[in-house]
Amino acid sequence: MNAQLKPAAPSLGTVKKVWRRPKPSSARQTRPMNDRGTLKSHIATEGATVMPPLSLDTIRIIPLGGVEEVGKNMTIVEYQDEIIVIDMGFQFPGEEAPGIDYIIPDTTYLQNKKKNIKGVFITHGHLDHIGGIPYIIDKLGNPPIYTRLLSSVMIKKRQDEFPHLPPLQLHVIEKDSRLRAGKHLSVRFFNVTHTIPDAMGVIVETPYGNIVFTGDLKIDHDNGVPMEHEVKTFEEVGRGNNLFMAGDSTNVERAGWSFSERAVHENLKKIMAETKGRLIMGTFASLLERVIFVIKTAEEMGKKVVLRGRSMKNNVEIAKELQILKVNAGTIITPEELDSYPPEKIIILATGAQGEELAALMRISTKKDKYIKMTKADTVLLSSSVIPGNERAVQELKDNISRQGASIIHYRIADVHSSGHANHDETLWIHKMIRPKFFMPLHGYHYMLRLHANIAKENGMSDENIVIPDNGMIIDIVEKGKKIVVRKETAPAGIVMVDGLGTGDVNDVVIRDRQLLAQDGMFVIIAIIDIKTGKTRQSPDIISRGFIYLKESQDLLRQTRFLIRKTIEDTTAEMHPVNFDYVKNNLREKVGKFLFQKTKKRPIVLPVLIEV
Amino acid sequence: MNAQLKPAAPSLGTVKKVWRRPKPSSARQTRPMNDRGTLKSHIATEGATVMPPLSLDTIRIIPLGGVEEVGKNMTIVEYQDEIIVIDMGFQFPGEEAPGIDYIIPDTTYLQNKKKNIKGVFITHGHLDHIGGIPYIIDKLGNPPIYTRLLSSVMIKKRQDEFPHLPPLQLHVIEKDSRLRAGKHLSVRFFNVTHTIPDAMGVIVETPYGNIVFTGDLKIDHDNGVPMEHEVKTFEEVGRGNNLFMAGDSTNVERAGWSFSERAVHENLKKIMAETKGRLIMGTFASLLERVIFVIKTAEEMGKKVVLRGRSMKNNVEIAKELQILKVNAGTIITPEELDSYPPEKIIILATGAQGEELAALMRISTKKDKYIKMTKADTVLLSSSVIPGNERAVQELKDNISRQGASIIHYRIADVHSSGHANHDETLWIHKMIRPKFFMPLHGYHYMLRLHANIAKENGMSDENIVIPDNGMIIDIVEKGKKIVVRKETAPAGIVMVDGLGTGDVNDVVIRDRQLLAQDGMFVIIAIIDIKTGKTRQSPDIISRGFIYLKESQDLLRQTRFLIRKTIEDTTAEMHPVNFDYVKNNLREKVGKFLFQKTKKRPIVLPVLIEV
Repeated sequence: MNAQLKPAAPSLGTVKKVWRRPKPSSARQTRPMNDRGTLKSHIATEGATVMPPLSLDTIRIIPLGGVEEVGKNMTIVEYQDEIIVIDMGFQFPGEEAPGIDYIIPDTTYLQNKKKNIKGVFITHGHLDHIGGIPYIIDKLGNPPIYTRLLSSVMIKKRQDEFPHLPPLQLHVIEKDSRLRAGKHLSVRFFNVTHTIPDAMGVIVETPYGNIVFTGDLKIDHDNGVPMEHEVKTFEEVGRGNNLFMAGDSTNVERAGWSFSERAVHENLKKIMAETKGRLIMGTFASLLERVIFVIKTAEEMGKKVVLRGRSMKNNVEIAKELQILKVNAGTIITPEELDSYPPEKIIILATGAQGEELAALMRISTKKDKYIKMTKADTVLLSSSVIPGNERAVQELKDNISRQGASIIHYRIADVHSSGHANHDETLWIHKMIRPKFFMPLHGYHYMLRLHANIAKENGMSDENIVIPDNGMIIDIVEKGKKIVVRKETAPAGIVMVDGLGTGDVNDVVIRDRQLLAQDGMFVIIAIIDIKTGKTRQSPDIISRGFIYLKESQDLLRQTRFLIRKTIEDTTAEMHPVNFDYVKNNLREKVGKFLFQKTKKRPIVLPVLIEV
Repeated sequence: MNAQLKPAAPSLGTVKKVWRRPKPSSARQTRPMNDRGTLKSHIATEGATVMPPLSLDTIRIIPLGGVEEVGKNMTIVEYQDEIIVIDMGFQFPGEEAPGIDYIIPDTTYLQNKKKNIKGVFITHGHLDHIGGIPYIIDKLGNPPIYTRLLSSVMIKKRQDEFPHLPPLQLHVIEKDSRLRAGKHLSVRFFNVTHTIPDAMGVIVETPYGNIVFTGDLKIDHDNGVPMEHEVKTFEEVGRGNNLFMAGDSTNVERAGWSFSERAVHENLKKIMAETKGRLIMGTFASLLERVIFVIKTAEEMGKKVVLRGRSMKNNVEIAKELQILKVNAGTIITPEELDSYPPEKIIILATGAQGEELAALMRISTKKDKYIKMTKADTVLLSSSVIPGNERAVQELKDNISRQGASIIHYRIADVHSSGHANHDETLWIHKMIRPKFFMPLHGYHYMLRLHANIAKENGMSDENIVIPDNGMIIDIVEKGKKIVVRKETAPAGIVMVDGLGTGDVNDVVIRDRQLLAQDGMFVIIAIIDIKTGKTRQSPDIISRGFIYLKESQDLLRQTRFLIRKTIEDTTAEMHPVNFDYVKNNLREKVGKFLFQKTKKRPIVLPVLIEV
């Protein structure tokens, strides 16, 4: 006996022929990757393309991430043999990449030039700007990272979760620092308003002028009149020889000026003062300025704050450590102490305003929290917007809360949230202040970038001075700053996925299989073949998951078993010796077709033939 | 030789033990069903519960669908041995049910009483009110369906896609009809404003008063003053002895009065007149009133209309057939004729404003349409809102359009869309006009229903006269209309899934497997065991899909093969005879644990043991 059991390695995890069902309608929600026009270029490339040479009088800028999405921000500035990196973010994948933890920028271009990297400059401590560090920094030879205090602590805390990595070369800089980052390049900073302290813009000084990165920002203003500190900051930046600006596009589609965080604070204060029972406030822990405001205000009102959710506790801990938050010993209490205070003295600050299944707010709303049981006397304040893609989850959260009878206040019915990004008029003001020669929109989907480009035009910039980038686009400012050109070559800018422990061990094939398995499941056939006669021994065995409920489909099973035997025996009848690959392909095709006829489903059919 | 290949039927498609990974963070977007507090009751039940008896003086109302979701609307009214069914909709599933086509109401309660069904009354022709008919009507003994002309044609066209079903008993009624639907019950109708012609409310007349269903509706108004025809209609309904009302909750969260469709029409007209190049308008084909308006207006302006997308063509065809749309022969042209007219004379009406992958608009925007190539001279008007869950798809659509350089007008930047559902103040007006004794909110998620209940209270109704329902809740108006009670028993109200050709052959286990497969894939182990020695013959074979890219993980594979042999041989060492189930369980556990350690992924591990 000799079991024909060795398609072995090459077939493992690979699919030679992928079923692609001609979907009858647009009803399905899950959409396979690579089925769209624009995704083809997204397959991670190997970096084999020849990069255009960099002449001595050229400054090269490459956005490696963050310009075809909101997330995984990373851009580089290159001049001669010096490279400056701005930000190193990640992104949470959508349903197009099931089972994936994160998506990070493709850094192949940098890996080939890592000795040239003079420093990584992080604008602020949000994950779409720092999240990629643990997965990328090592591949780049662990270059020094420069950022302000709070961001540096957030990077460090995150890095602690990866003890196998070498320690970071992390340097804290002040907003007024100026760093010589090589022979030719220097880097300066400027303070910007965002939703987290220590956010900053970065200015890379080159021989031909400044490359200005605004970072994520909004403008602190009063009815469209920027506050004095903003005017001062931007006047100063504007005085520079600003050759090029890369700016935040996230909210440029919104008209006017953004709703100011100070106004949000006023509204929160009012709600905190007026709420009769407990106030359970859901917000992003990353909106650290708001979190700090709520805790300070609670203290002023003589109220107690309970923190729920790991990131909320972590971030408040960091703020306390750095003395960004100074609070009396008794203000933040533990959940166990809740019963010692009357309900109107209680503010609960919880994570999970996006309806995340395992986050604090969802647990509280489904009575899974050990200490906090929601009642109809509670008021839940959702101090956040809904991130696209999370609508159903947030709906479920609201349903769960209202099943407990609690009242809900959210951003659609009251001004209890404001985003950290500038609207149209604010963005125009930034352009007017910085007055760059060239411009590239950053941070957003293509449509947003295009709208941001329109703002630059509104400010008088001509088309040829504006580049609307894609990830990996090579943008050269040539002839000592005279003009800007887009190279036809592009840097590798595939989707690099972080899945479980490994990076890059998940490829397109694996993702496509997951999508197919999610739609129609799989169907393994195990048949024993007598090598001499070509006949099957016994009825073939079938293992199926995610296809249909076979327990109630005995008839279909019987027919399929019959078809399997017949297919094998018909195929092997005149075949000496038996070509097992041929038999398998035949089985795959016949059984696949039969199952589709009977069920309109196309499970992945995997034949295993055992030869005796 | 005897292959141990017969766990056979019982294990097919079932999972004895489901891996449930303790997810380290809330990062993942896909959420397994049944992991949420509220979903437990959602597993389709077998209808074995004993239903509470229906006394002679009781009117029973059961919402079978549409009150824990937006979609699959269906409610029944039962009195003695007579049952009236209102609507029979379906719903598109979210990512919690991968691979599923539709979700329909659980009609077990009715199947046990099908001889009592006097008629199915359809309020209007949208899929969330008619979509369930082909999957349900047969199971109910094909009872007569009553509805108005347009809705009847839409039902019929849809039924044509199911030629194996017996013909429907479809009856067209007029809005002023009154039908005796049994010995005790009669049914009347009233005209309502929605987004499709022939929408109506339904009044079931019982011995104790009227049961009023508003259907989906808004109020045609001018600055919050309802139009005369609305006042007339609702005054007439209000004059009845209205015992109970079930009303539309979809938009009650929105303040004030809805933006009127007439105002939308004015804006569309202006855009149509002013647009310089071609106007490509994406909208729902189901917004038939708007579609008709655009075609009529184009004709008045001497413009030509091209229809793109199957449902758009179908619906316009129906409207023409029924003479709801009367249009000259040359107004609607074929795409082939496009080049015969200057761009400013062209209006393209296309499906796909939700970013559906295969719909007309996405195809046009990715240059896949055979006739229509998008250029930067085109203006794209997205005359629709974004349905929750479709945000990413719509973003991609906008990106694709703006990559072609075309301008985009959408509902967030101009009033080019209005929903067909009443806002808060409008809904309050409806309550004031109909003045029911009892009230139950319909059509919406729990949170929306609760807000609608608050409107009833605002109108002076007391809590004990209001029922906030769940699907399957048994609501009895007892003692000849004296009071309303909710029974502790519930009618089966599981999630019934339509998947491929079958209904109900997909159950929870299959869906859970699909979710697990989508996250971490699967790992089949095939090992041959010598029954005498308990030793494995040769190296075990492995088939894996959707897990990791094993081609690049030869080391892991080698270690896993070693572990498999060792586990089998250790387990069988002292075992006579070999307990194969025990070996398999052991393998599943050991290999699963090992793979998780190495990869942080938990594929479904499926051991197959072949005994020689």
